[in-house]
Amino acid sequence: MRSVRIVVTNCNTTQEMTEEIVRGARAAAGPGTTVLGLTPAWGPESAEGWLDSYLSAAAVIDLLRTYEGPSYDAVVMAGFGEHGREGVRELVDVPVVDITEAAAHLACLLGRRYGVVTTLERSCGQIEDSLELAGVGRNCAAVVGTGLGVLDLGDADRTEAAFLAAAERVREAGAEVLVLGCAGMTGLQRTVGEKLGLPVVDGVGAAVKLAESLVGLGLNTSRAGGYAKPVPKRRVWPPRSG
Amino acid sequence: MRSVRIVVTNCNTTQEMTEEIVRGARAAAGPGTTVLGLTPAWGPESAEGWLDSYLSAAAVIDLLRTYEGPSYDAVVMAGFGEHGREGVRELVDVPVVDITEAAAHLACLLGRRYGVVTTLERSCGQIEDSLELAGVGRNCAAVVGTGLGVLDLGDADRTEAAFLAAAERVREAGAEVLVLGCAGMTGLQRTVGEKLGLPVVDGVGAAVKLAESLVGLGLNTSRAGGYAKPVPKRRVWPPRSG
Amino acid sequence: MRSVRIVVTNCNTTQEMTEEIVRGARAAAGPGTTVLGLTPAWGPESAEGWLDSYLSAAAVIDLLRTYEGPSYDAVVMAGFGEHGREGVRELVDVPVVDITEAAAHLACLLGRRYGVVTTLERSCGQIEDSLELAGVGRNCAAVVGTGLGVLDLGDADRTEAAFLAAAERVREAGAEVLVLGCAGMTGLQRTVGEKLGLPVVDGVGAAVKLAESLVGLGLNTSRAGGYAKPVPKRRVWPPRSG
Amino acid sequence: MRSVRIVVTNCNTTQEMTEEIVRGARAAAGPGTTVLGLTPAWGPESAEGWLDSYLSAAAVIDLLRTYEGPSYDAVVMAGFGEHGREGVRELVDVPVVDITEAAAHLACLLGRRYGVVTTLERSCGQIEDSLELAGVGRNCAAVVGTGLGVLDLGDADRTEAAFLAAAERVREAGAEVLVLGCAGMTGLQRTVGEKLGLPVVDGVGAAVKLAESLVGLGLNTSRAGGYAKPVPKRRVWPPRSG
Amino acid sequence: MRSVRIVVTNCNTTQEMTEEIVRGARAAAGPGTTVLGLTPAWGPESAEGWLDSYLSAAAVIDLLRTYEGPSYDAVVMAGFGEHGREGVRELVDVPVVDITEAAAHLACLLGRRYGVVTTLERSCGQIEDSLELAGVGRNCAAVVGTGLGVLDLGDADRTEAAFLAAAERVREAGAEVLVLGCAGMTGLQRTVGEKLGLPVVDGVGAAVKLAESLVGLGLNTSRAGGYAKPVPKRRVWPPRSG
Amino acid sequence: MRSVRIVVTNCNTTQEMTEEIVRGARAAAGPGTTVLGLTPAWGPESAEGWLDSYLSAAAVIDLLRTYEGPSYDAVVMAGFGEHGREGVRELVDVPVVDITEAAAHLACLLGRRYGVVTTLERSCGQIEDSLELAGVGRNCAAVVGTGLGVLDLGDADRTEAAFLAAAERVREAGAEVLVLGCAGMTGLQRTVGEKLGLPVVDGVGAAVKLAESLVGLGLNTSRAGGYAKPVPKRRVWPPRSG
Repeated sequence: MRSVRIVVTNCNTTQEMTEEIVRGARAAAGPGTTVLGLTPAWGPESAEGWLDSYLSAAAVIDLLRTYEGPSYDAVVMAGFGEHGREGVRELVDVPVVDITEAAAHLACLLGRRYGVVTTLERSCGQIEDSLELAGVGRNCAAVVGTGLGVLDLGDADRTEAAFLAAAERVREAGAEVLVLGCAGMTGLQRTVGEKLGLPVVDGVGAAVKLAESLVGLGLNTSRAGGYAKPVPKRRVWPPRSG
Repeated sequence: MRSVRIVVTNCNTTQEMTEEIVRGARAAAGPGTTVLGLTPAWGPESAEGWLDSYLSAAAVIDLLRTYEGPSYDAVVMAGFGEHGREGVRELVDVPVVDITEAAAHLACLLGRRYGVVTTLERSCGQIEDSLELAGVGRNCAAVVGTGLGVLDLGDADRTEAAFLAAAERVREAGAEVLVLGCAGMTGLQRTVGEKLGLPVVDGVGAAVKLAESLVGLGLNTSRAGGYAKPVPKRRVWPPRSG
Repeated sequence: MRSVRIVVTNCNTTQEMTEEIVRGARAAAGPGTTVLGLTPAWGPESAEGWLDSYLSAAAVIDLLRTYEGPSYDAVVMAGFGEHGREGVRELVDVPVVDITEAAAHLACLLGRRYGVVTTLERSCGQIEDSLELAGVGRNCAAVVGTGLGVLDLGDADRTEAAFLAAAERVREAGAEVLVLGCAGMTGLQRTVGEKLGLPVVDGVGAAVKLAESLVGLGLNTSRAGGYAKPVPKRRVWPPRSG
Repeated sequence: MRSVRIVVTNCNTTQEMTEEIVRGARAAAGPGTTVLGLTPAWGPESAEGWLDSYLSAAAVIDLLRTYEGPSYDAVVMAGFGEHGREGVRELVDVPVVDITEAAAHLACLLGRRYGVVTTLERSCGQIEDSLELAGVGRNCAAVVGTGLGVLDLGDADRTEAAFLAAAERVREAGAEVLVLGCAGMTGLQRTVGEKLGLPVVDGVGAAVKLAESLVGLGLNTSRAGGYAKPVPKRRVWPPRSG
Repeated sequence: MRSVRIVVTNCNTTQEMTEEIVRGARAAAGPGTTVLGLTPAWGPESAEGWLDSYLSAAAVIDLLRTYEGPSYDAVVMAGFGEHGREGVRELVDVPVVDITEAAAHLACLLGRRYGVVTTLERSCGQIEDSLELAGVGRNCAAVVGTGLGVLDLGDADRTEAAFLAAAERVREAGAEVLVLGCAGMTGLQRTVGEKLGLPVVDGVGAAVKLAESLVGLGLNTSRAGGYAKPVPKRRVWPPRSG
Repeated sequence: MRSVRIVVTNCNTTQEMTEEIVRGARAAAGPGTTVLGLTPAWGPESAEGWLDSYLSAAAVIDLLRTYEGPSYDAVVMAGFGEHGREGVRELVDVPVVDITEAAAHLACLLGRRYGVVTTLERSCGQIEDSLELAGVGRNCAAVVGTGLGVLDLGDADRTEAAFLAAAERVREAGAEVLVLGCAGMTGLQRTVGEKLGLPVVDGVGAAVKLAESLVGLGLNTSRAGGYAKPVPKRRVWPPRSG
């Protein structure tokens, strides 16, 4: 049995969040899977809104472009609702799974409708768009914000209370399954799942399993059409720091 | 590492097809996964069309209802485009993955649009409906038939030629990824994938990996809403044969 | 003027409900129409949820397959939101009208948006899917449950109160026309229509009129495409009882 | 058994076409139904395009507003793809059925997808819009023109040949049922249906049967919401001719 | 710099409303633009509901058909949610902009979702249909009525209070931009915009700017397809009054 | 009359293309409008595909963030199908118009369906997504590639021939209006419009007029919801070159 080496990219520059995401990814990973977390050299310290998201997309692409570590079998992009997955698919020669779509794909298997609870209300639109373009928007009943910023998630009690309140709204909208709408919420699925009586899907774990699945089946991104290799040309990349 | 025990249900009464499906499932399964194939005691010898599909749905539900073998962790339903998955989700206490939706979920990760090549043209509508209700119809570019019946798939050369011709039509419709639209096509992904230059997803393998993923993450079907346990009541089941 | 002979199939094994449905059908039928009610030999005593629905679909197909009574001109399938209509269309050589779609077709003619009031909340999703696939989902404003089971509908006062409460929610969602979402509600359209000030469509009556219409116009199910005759093959049907 | 009195409004000023439509309506009508044809006093001699359609809508509303003949039980509006049905629903106190939607409603019962063959290509867009707003656009595979004007339909051989050619395109788009997309095509369903091997639905006949159905069930247009009685106010109507 | 001559058609016969609309149009117009208001010779004194709308559509077409004043470069149709724009596009040889679509086009540029506040609730459906067919319905969060009739809008305080209450509902539905859903509300954008903290788009102003834009770019209605010149034929128009 | 100062951002680093875009913008601009072209300091020399697009989005945001020239009234983003518009809306305090959406908005006013002719086939998907999220995808009949890269557009004859061939495919798909799907095609609308007999919309010109329109009406981006100001936080931007 071949091992699977997964690179997980954080969408922001906060090293602690990368570590937290890696912990969540390793908890989900199979025994033969290794997880390497990468933090962008530039970009926002947390991605909240469109400007951050586009900045993050370019920074993650730049991160993988300049990566010189050990080779890997798949990329997991850990930014819920953030942009960039199609660009990374063009760039790398291995399967790419974004945690937004990953959570939705698994959620669809567990109930007729799912819903997402995320951080700030301003992110809901981005998430809706991301799900729609990934092809899994149809069975999404609602995307609801907790009002908490990404960096507020450290306060566990406040986070849980806000999550439960938002989850109630999502359930009323018809959701039978919940999705954690932020990489920084990883771990919450266990504590709140029982209280809610609903399955709770964490995107990081979901993406790790889907990445393992694609690698295990020998499947890779199609080069026919949208995700062909980037056209060779002159590109001015931001100078590497240091 | 806990092992995962998967029950794979064939949608028809043909034991040889069950065996072929089990071979495909085992080829995809992880090292800790065991696969048990089940064949319905009644129903059609192959499922082609709506009548067969509804008959198959009830027969597979009956099969699992009366199953008395070793316990299992997940069900894979191996009937491409066939009905029944929601009913099985009500019945059993473990995750249920249908090969139709499974193939589509993975295909969405590999390209912007996917397409399905199936057996008879008459099955295309059923498959479209199945994908739509599963929530993954948006990025399906086309579902195309080869004109071959399920039981004609034994002739490998003819099958491959018909598949390649149909695949060309699917690609012209915009598909960047192909899905094998019949459990009996399992194995074809290797032989035709290279010729086509496109990733080819087999639903049986996809469903096995998704079932392993759900079990590995401790996720189970939601009981809130549509997939609650069946209401206790009098039901007259078909008498068991023998 | 030729008479029209309609067979009405109940979706469950409860003979009393068949009789009630037949009464409703006869009240709607034109002077030259005869109605014959058929009860499946197996299946659930009431259809509530997906498992019941698939069981019912196969049982109704089996019922018509083994029917040996006088010939008929059309089939009305009296199970609101239940599966099977496409399979019956393949099987029989006469037009087939399902009460779900029938009610929606007529409701569309009476207002810009219609809504459905059904029994248990768990059935709402099935009904939504059924309307969507029948091609009449667009103008459905909402499907709402009363919380009453099919077999609770005998208590007229409780049923009416629950119906009126649910109807209020449907109206708030924009419905201008109501649809009775259960064959067992037949008759309620008269008592509640006046109180609500909205037209109320009963699927059984609607289906009888549509069946008469198709027969009167000499129209029959298309055999081109999805509803072709079933492919001849070996099918193991449940042994006939007795 | 009460008789049903149906008023059929032509969408144009051509008296011969009214007569032809009335013949078609009577051929479809049940034994207790009487049909009265009405021709607008003003408007286009045939409705082809948006300008004609809006002119026709107002003229038909004016026609019914000033009608002083015997009372009637339902209105059939015989202009395929033409505007006005919602306005007539506001105006009169009986059910209103437009032949466009009527044909589509019945066609949905006969196959998974239907298609429309109409006169000029320029009318296709109007028909698509009309079907979409009527709530029955989902299962329409295609609307195709024959290139013949409404008043060219008198040449039976040319009409049939053009219809058959257009029907082939509709069938290739997935239609399993055909709809005659012009009131002036009434009668063609018999001659071409057999050649095509597909059911062919004529909107005039369909609308008559649906009107009879609504009257028979005691159903009427909802006054809650969009189709409330017109607000009383000053309206300057075109002076009556003569 | 060439001047732009815009004809603005009121949808009703109320001369005062034409004047008010012209004032709004002139306030929005660029320095080189002249605005000429036209009032239909017949039709409703205000357009509220489908009957009025179809009457208005024909009256506006008739108005432009018989117009004999100075030539013009574009038509602005000032009836929010009213019919007729496609017919006018066929008729005249200059660009035509309807205020409904115009407001929506600009609103889409200002926020991710917009909403409409209109007069009577009965008009909401018409507006939704108009936006959908214009191709800009997707990002419309809600259309909400104030309960005020068109001719009640003269009472500024009552109008503003009703508008603000309705705007709150639209905002809760997700709208980030408001659209004034009645030509008679022109001017309200200034007084309520500040209180709401949201951009408020007036359709009359929007249509004037879009008409200037099209003229400035030398763009005109396509004659290929739906908006070809009307087919020459006999049409009986209402006799001209006086 | 106040003048309007528009900043036009190129999506790539090619200065010549900025100049060409500015020429197109000035040709479209009103007499009181000034146009200032800006070229990103980093990013691709032409944007073709997802990787380029995300790189471009961040580079354009960075460009405007660090801009220190004279103040401006609106931003026009000249990258057809490229990402970033929502992020720029968050960043700047003036209206932002992307040429993709701008062309579609005007095209919707000129015909019932429009189509886009772009450079490489690989860009079609991005453009479709961009139109869909902008809320104007419904009336887009097709997006078709010419097979020419952005930097190949210099060869006028080859470009025109390829454009005309692609335009034919778009027209067959039902488009009545064409959109130039690349900023580098600006100017082509005049030469090919006449040959095609269809209106041809150039996004640069369209965006300039829409920007003038928004400024003229005093409308600005909504800060309620998705396009609120970026949350203040630490962001590591690429170091400024030089």
